[in-house]
Amino acid sequence: MGHEASGIVAEVGPSVTSVKPGDRVAIEPGFPCRRCDKCKTGKYNLCPEMQFAADPPRSHGALCRIFKAPEDFVHKIPDSLSLQEAVLVEPLSVAVHGVRLADLKPGDSVLVQGSGTIGLLVAATAKAYGANSVFITDVNRKKLEFARSFVGCETFLCNSSAQPEDEAVRLKKEMKMDAGFDAVLECTGVESSAQLGLFASGPGGVFVQIGMGNLNQTLPLGVMCEKETVLKAAFRYGPRDYAIALGLLDSGKINVQPMISSVVPFESATEAWEKTKRGEGIKNLIEGVKD
Amino acid sequence: MGHEASGIVAEVGPSVTSVKPGDRVAIEPGFPCRRCDKCKTGKYNLCPEMQFAADPPRSHGALCRIFKAPEDFVHKIPDSLSLQEAVLVEPLSVAVHGVRLADLKPGDSVLVQGSGTIGLLVAATAKAYGANSVFITDVNRKKLEFARSFVGCETFLCNSSAQPEDEAVRLKKEMKMDAGFDAVLECTGVESSAQLGLFASGPGGVFVQIGMGNLNQTLPLGVMCEKETVLKAAFRYGPRDYAIALGLLDSGKINVQPMISSVVPFESATEAWEKTKRGEGIKNLIEGVKD
Amino acid sequence: MGHEASGIVAEVGPSVTSVKPGDRVAIEPGFPCRRCDKCKTGKYNLCPEMQFAADPPRSHGALCRIFKAPEDFVHKIPDSLSLQEAVLVEPLSVAVHGVRLADLKPGDSVLVQGSGTIGLLVAATAKAYGANSVFITDVNRKKLEFARSFVGCETFLCNSSAQPEDEAVRLKKEMKMDAGFDAVLECTGVESSAQLGLFASGPGGVFVQIGMGNLNQTLPLGVMCEKETVLKAAFRYGPRDYAIALGLLDSGKINVQPMISSVVPFESATEAWEKTKRGEGIKNLIEGVKD
Amino acid sequence: MGHEASGIVAEVGPSVTSVKPGDRVAIEPGFPCRRCDKCKTGKYNLCPEMQFAADPPRSHGALCRIFKAPEDFVHKIPDSLSLQEAVLVEPLSVAVHGVRLADLKPGDSVLVQGSGTIGLLVAATAKAYGANSVFITDVNRKKLEFARSFVGCETFLCNSSAQPEDEAVRLKKEMKMDAGFDAVLECTGVESSAQLGLFASGPGGVFVQIGMGNLNQTLPLGVMCEKETVLKAAFRYGPRDYAIALGLLDSGKINVQPMISSVVPFESATEAWEKTKRGEGIKNLIEGVKD
Repeated sequence: MGHEASGIVAEVGPSVTSVKPGDRVAIEPGFPCRRCDKCKTGKYNLCPEMQFAADPPRSHGALCRIFKAPEDFVHKIPDSLSLQEAVLVEPLSVAVHGVRLADLKPGDSVLVQGSGTIGLLVAATAKAYGANSVFITDVNRKKLEFARSFVGCETFLCNSSAQPEDEAVRLKKEMKMDAGFDAVLECTGVESSAQLGLFASGPGGVFVQIGMGNLNQTLPLGVMCEKETVLKAAFRYGPRDYAIALGLLDSGKINVQPMISSVVPFESATEAWEKTKRGEGIKNLIEGVKD
Repeated sequence: MGHEASGIVAEVGPSVTSVKPGDRVAIEPGFPCRRCDKCKTGKYNLCPEMQFAADPPRSHGALCRIFKAPEDFVHKIPDSLSLQEAVLVEPLSVAVHGVRLADLKPGDSVLVQGSGTIGLLVAATAKAYGANSVFITDVNRKKLEFARSFVGCETFLCNSSAQPEDEAVRLKKEMKMDAGFDAVLECTGVESSAQLGLFASGPGGVFVQIGMGNLNQTLPLGVMCEKETVLKAAFRYGPRDYAIALGLLDSGKINVQPMISSVVPFESATEAWEKTKRGEGIKNLIEGVKD
Repeated sequence: MGHEASGIVAEVGPSVTSVKPGDRVAIEPGFPCRRCDKCKTGKYNLCPEMQFAADPPRSHGALCRIFKAPEDFVHKIPDSLSLQEAVLVEPLSVAVHGVRLADLKPGDSVLVQGSGTIGLLVAATAKAYGANSVFITDVNRKKLEFARSFVGCETFLCNSSAQPEDEAVRLKKEMKMDAGFDAVLECTGVESSAQLGLFASGPGGVFVQIGMGNLNQTLPLGVMCEKETVLKAAFRYGPRDYAIALGLLDSGKINVQPMISSVVPFESATEAWEKTKRGEGIKNLIEGVKD
Repeated sequence: MGHEASGIVAEVGPSVTSVKPGDRVAIEPGFPCRRCDKCKTGKYNLCPEMQFAADPPRSHGALCRIFKAPEDFVHKIPDSLSLQEAVLVEPLSVAVHGVRLADLKPGDSVLVQGSGTIGLLVAATAKAYGANSVFITDVNRKKLEFARSFVGCETFLCNSSAQPEDEAVRLKKEMKMDAGFDAVLECTGVESSAQLGLFASGPGGVFVQIGMGNLNQTLPLGVMCEKETVLKAAFRYGPRDYAIALGLLDSGKINVQPMISSVVPFESATEAWEKTKRGEGIKNLIEGVKD
């Protein structure tokens, strides 16, 4: 909580040059040590000294009036974006990170599992980056309808009581993807979904686990061996992900406005979580006080 | 059975130029279609039309007097190698393929799980290719002793009744590898071993499943996400693996002679399997008739 | 000459399954040996035994009534494409190959040098595959006008009498790309253009030489060292390039119709070259006899 | 001058934990900004704000009694290494960086051009990391003799008055490398040497320019296109290079002792340069005062 945030710069230190008071910014909420092997080799999201903004009760992240961040972890937003849209740069960066891990090549076929916020953004990002054919799944018909209009891609309604292996056969047949998918991006964290995705991926394919779910999951390792599946697990976002996400929004390749379901004032912040808990809307934002 | 073989060229077709009758060769026992997407993109081991030599009862592979193979799937062996050693080019190619999947970088630390034929060859290959520190595990103290002399690396005796997560802690502590391993190469196919390896791998590390075991295995996906583990599954061998294996043997970087435990004549072939079943020796070879 | 061709299948051998007489196909005009190291490792365009269709006077390629090709080197075209458009799959495959060598990452900035057939297709391909910002250059204002409408990207008119280093400064300034380009795709083959491109590429950037020009060219190696430029040279097309090109056309991401300037009958074939020599139009096609 | 240095820690700041006064360290002499895109994406050697130690007259680097460096840019040396050997960690890191850029794969054949300090260390590093066959060149027979014993590899005496293309033919023939080299590492900076290397590299090969020479060099771009040569330019060293270099020395895979030709006291520092200028010895070190 409190890790998806945008804001207006209130004050800057003497050596800051890239932003000035009054600038509107998206906040990247995790600050790495900059010195360890992971930071230096381009994987600061794996920094063991990472200070992540939202780590209750120690920190409530950006759920406060003034939030202090290093210059290079606030990203100036273009005029084309509202502060509200800029809040979604955080989940979009998660999507960008996952799609980049998949290392999509021109012409690849992509299956995205799950039509929640992350799944929708992952599918939209994969499409923006040239995947030839993108498919999205869910167990909820209404979510798939939204996905169809938001992403503009084909959808598949999963039958959660069927065997994952059988569902994979049905999926490949209905989507006319007999050879399996080049890339599968799992955004639900549900074990049976991971299984379905691994059965549906093609020989030599890549499977990226983006959704977080049960700590231990049973996977079809035998089938993965025969196909030499590459399974990658994604964790937050790293270098360039925020900049790429902002570029996707600024260029109009992705429009997150339809995802913003409500905006509540800071004083009624808890209402936002309650709406979300009740399954109302996709993203319910909290607005701070301007003064 | 019958897929590990060497032999002497008896006859060649009119357009064959790289080998001639009398040449001693190692036989690569799987012949791909050369035309599909996998064959053309450098992954012929994933060819769906692969004709693999040993597929009983349809085929007994090279367990015969005359075996027919395409020119480019027989590999002339250097004078430095005996025909017996050349039999081990097949399992060494499996090892080479797995090590290449791990994409070892100079300075990487490597954990090899399992001290059977494949584990031993994987560890020796990783060492030959410059891994800074190679460690090998097993549950059998005697196998570790052999590994220590064969590979020349540190060893770790696994306690198979301990929890994999605890074993990983002990392993990292005893091997002074607090940060975890850059690459873990699993050669047992045993679920608890895969779990141990995944717990022991470092952030951003790669885990290669080389051993084939239970089709479904429970893996610590939560921990893999936090570390962005890359899991790759290996299947047989592909382009260049045989040539690289032969180079390792010819240069003396790997010497498989100590692995050859016995040689039985073709007529008593079944004895070789019985010895192996009884756990006698490492590799029990079968010798054909020369005439 | 004669290597850009489409046609109708006249006859097929007994084991052919993917096409049948009457099917419309794009012809990939180079047939590799399928057996050498290059063929097996996914780089058949580098096969030393390549049989390339157009190699006068030995071969006039597809400039004939009946042309024989292996099944997997004829690519069935979708209903959405005309036979005329399918001729352009060949140059589009060159573009696809070059863009794939550049290994574009989401968010990359791309400079394409030269607005001839290949340059236009390279820019369009880079854009289709998600490059955030694509820029194209030429010394000819009219060609840039066409490029602007064909690709939908920003253009830069080169001053061929200026020093390449100065031109690079002007280019980066006018295009607001102070940090230099992530990828530069050189499609002219002209030495001063290669120099400009290398000066304009950013630190750690990639430069792909797609255009063929003088065999020896003077390059700013000192600057390349300071920036750790990666220079890749492209040669024709390899695995998947034709399929990807067809996918780009079928999905409507690229429309080559505006490039087809004229179609002359087979009997007046030489007219097509004469038009091209006179600088008339972009692509002047030759149409065979249907019977 | 003054960028190759080792020393003893005199004092540490309050938050320093990895070294303490009295520790012997190798000094990595360039301090990047840690905040720019290059620093964050694992390429801090390309940081535009890099503070490099030796930049006369502004800085004489470590040619002083007390040198201040950030904790993570001093590397504790193992007991197995002398302070004198530790001075050579700097050029060895240059070698490591170049070899890593070449992305050597098991079984690759490697040509190293030039038998000066860097060439020798590059060849030794390539060998330590498993290149199957390493060859080294020079125009000086005596240097090649040293190379043969230092690296333990085959050598080739270049005829500097021959045409590079002809020399490449002779080199490939004499070294029995008809297909050309998988990787060529150019360590002289001389134009004709770069040309020879590019002619000698095999199809799909990689050429790494490590030596710095003339800013502009004429390269055989036509031949590079036909072979799809990948040319990479190397600049100093980046993440992990120092640690890898130290690992190579500590494990005994490389022994730099034979390269240390003389040690002069700090007061006679200029003598070291004079010896070097006169071509005496390989590395002439300067020793500071201990107190």
